Amino acid sequence: MPSLLDELSAEMLPAIEQEMLATFNDGFPAQFGLMHSMLAYHLGWQETTGRNTARGKRIRPLTLLLGTMAVEGDWRAALPAAAAVEFLHNFSLIHDDIEDRSEFRHGRLTLWKKVGVAQSINAGDALFSLAFLTLQRLSMPISAESICEVYRVLGAACLNLTGGQSLDLDFEAAKDIEIQSYYTMIEGKTAALMRASTEIGAVLGSSDAAKRSALANFGHYLGLAFQTQDDLLGIWGETSATGKSAESDLVTGKKSLPVIYALQRDEQFKKRWNSGPIQAEEVGKIVADLDLIGARDYTQQQTDLFTQRALDYILYLPSDNKAVMALKSLAESLTRRRA
Amino acid sequence: MPSLLDELSAEMLPAIEQEMLATFNDGFPAQFGLMHSMLAYHLGWQETTGRNTARGKRIRPLTLLLGTMAVEGDWRAALPAAAAVEFLHNFSLIHDDIEDRSEFRHGRLTLWKKVGVAQSINAGDALFSLAFLTLQRLSMPISAESICEVYRVLGAACLNLTGGQSLDLDFEAAKDIEIQSYYTMIEGKTAALMRASTEIGAVLGSSDAAKRSALANFGHYLGLAFQTQDDLLGIWGETSATGKSAESDLVTGKKSLPVIYALQRDEQFKKRWNSGPIQAEEVGKIVADLDLIGARDYTQQQTDLFTQRALDYILYLPSDNKAVMALKSLAESLTRRRA
Repeated sequence: MPSLLDELSAEMLPAIEQEMLATFNDGFPAQFGLMHSMLAYHLGWQETTGRNTARGKRIRPLTLLLGTMAVEGDWRAALPAAAAVEFLHNFSLIHDDIEDRSEFRHGRLTLWKKVGVAQSINAGDALFSLAFLTLQRLSMPISAESICEVYRVLGAACLNLTGGQSLDLDFEAAKDIEIQSYYTMIEGKTAALMRASTEIGAVLGSSDAAKRSALANFGHYLGLAFQTQDDLLGIWGETSATGKSAESDLVTGKKSLPVIYALQRDEQFKKRWNSGPIQAEEVGKIVADLDLIGARDYTQQQTDLFTQRALDYILYLPSDNKAVMALKSLAESLTRRRA
Repeated sequence: MPSLLDELSAEMLPAIEQEMLATFNDGFPAQFGLMHSMLAYHLGWQETTGRNTARGKRIRPLTLLLGTMAVEGDWRAALPAAAAVEFLHNFSLIHDDIEDRSEFRHGRLTLWKKVGVAQSINAGDALFSLAFLTLQRLSMPISAESICEVYRVLGAACLNLTGGQSLDLDFEAAKDIEIQSYYTMIEGKTAALMRASTEIGAVLGSSDAAKRSALANFGHYLGLAFQTQDDLLGIWGETSATGKSAESDLVTGKKSLPVIYALQRDEQFKKRWNSGPIQAEEVGKIVADLDLIGARDYTQQQTDLFTQRALDYILYLPSDNKAVMALKSLAESLTRRRA
């Protein structure tokens, strides 16, 4: 029997994809031929090997629509905003891949590896522009005041997103990173847009301030849980399911939560880490070390804690609402995922 | 005796700078320390050798405010939008400098040369975000409907901006460029934001559709004239005054209007151009060739034509309005500039 989340996803995900495509084709007319094909590639609408495999999970637009429904609003009226947050997420992926020199995403070449740095910086900017333009499709019964409010929430989220990314880039060269700095970083880099998504869902569905705040906080903690779980999977995940080598976070030298935790706690690990890149053949031993240091347990505990906080905010929403139930199981499933 | 334009500039430019600074300091609080200093450098508020030398001309915000005043609106109420267009312009400069591998701007190192590609892509994104957030400072008597309209005009302009930049990047490798493609390119890359600036000025000052259209078209042709003149100065300008070598457009291989014109008209020039980069010591001869081919005359004629079209649209605005007179002299002076 499909869960409520599956049921609502089955209705919402195709609607999100349709809205994104319509907006996208409107936004990139004939003279934008090159831009159209570059971005269609990145968004998983071109050169895919199988159905949907190259697309992301569309988590942000899904939680946005569930947020609207959770406050008894019409989720279909919120579709343009759902498309906007997914475009924004993808703009940030395009730029992050350049900044982090990542060569693969979802098992395919990243956009910059395919078309070069210059065109892909600019393609990311185009998607950023399109995201803001997409909000113009919001219409009755949504008021101009609400649309302005959506712009405000989204603008602030983008600023936090870039602030988080700046910190993350800074971490690359940093010798000592406080765990608190890591949380400040992911609050911007991951939680800001997740928070904005559920908050915007609320803004578009109701004028109830308490519910808006509950949904915003739900999204915030969901984002934090999502990132710490992602960090865990970057080291302990199933290689094939993540679409990239599970070991890659150690090999690429990413300062993820388990690594930052171990750097703070274990002199021997710190010495090894600072002495040069970790080689693929060392990964098994280093993973075992991290386990012993307690880095995996700590990361898992943090994920559970953030998930619990997210779920606490769900209590402020009507428990008999289908979307509220779906958000609850989404939070539970996301942080139990193995890929 | 100072002209009307000088008089209004003397009042408006400091107000623009103040609004930009206030928004900027609001937008980048303590945890954004690095971002704050990177962007303050780019915007000419840090590490400048002399007063204002590292700042741009602030043409876009100035024409926006003059646009508001030209339709009898209160230009001070439009200041947040003026700051927004200048932030957007600067976001695009930061990314263009990376994409074009430009090492100097206003006689100083470009941001990416100073802080690296990764941080400067992200800093550009932060400025983009701030631009959209800045519009939230628009307030009474400006309605939510007008603010939404400003977001629409600006979002569309950004999309065109990136479309133009994509074409420009494409030109680098292209063997044959039609002059028409060049105009499509600068319509996006340069004219879109100039058009948006004057159009937004109108939107914020009045609900008169005819005046809005006149100001939008004025900005459009002003942008085209500005770019063709810039192309002319990139080859025939006074070295010192442009802040970069006047010859650099030939040496860097920029496919500017005079070059595209000559490539279409002269086989010998085309042969030389396609055989490899032009060396600094050749510049004198190549400039003389371009003169003979008529590339300078053609470019000058186009600038004059676009300027005249811009001025034609001024006729739809009240001729006794000070800002209208100032816009008129701005158009005349910009395209007669030598730097």
